[in-house]
Amino acid sequence: MAEPDRKADPKLLEILVCPLTKGPLRYDAAAQELISDRAGLAYPIRDGIPIMLIDEARPLEDDASAR
Amino acid sequence: MAEPDRKADPKLLEILVCPLTKGPLRYDAAAQELISDRAGLAYPIRDGIPIMLIDEARPLEDDASAR
Repeated sequence: MAEPDRKADPKLLEILVCPLTKGPLRYDAAAQELISDRAGLAYPIRDGIPIMLIDEARPLEDDASAR
Repeated sequence: MAEPDRKADPKLLEILVCPLTKGPLRYDAAAQELISDRAGLAYPIRDGIPIMLIDEARPLEDDASAR
């Protein structure tokens, strides 16, 4: 009975939004980024802390398909 | 082939940590909070933006079991 749902992660990602567009975010586990396709921005996750600031986001310049 | 894994949420919650203790967080979907049991703090998620700031966190005073 120990922590049966600890890993279930009840849709945390689905309720998070881009601070610029209020649109959905994708989690890029390899890059450790939260990606807003609509804004063309990637928000970094630094040491486990998501940095949801537009000034800190990386433009998705190398991902032309996001435009 | 449309967004097959969009809802999979590859362990985003598991890589997030408390900025104070660097310990694990729990997601409280009802309260819209990320809870650090170790710190005894709950970080709010406001309009889909997680606020990972100690100054903005709520002490878990009403949850004595977390102490």
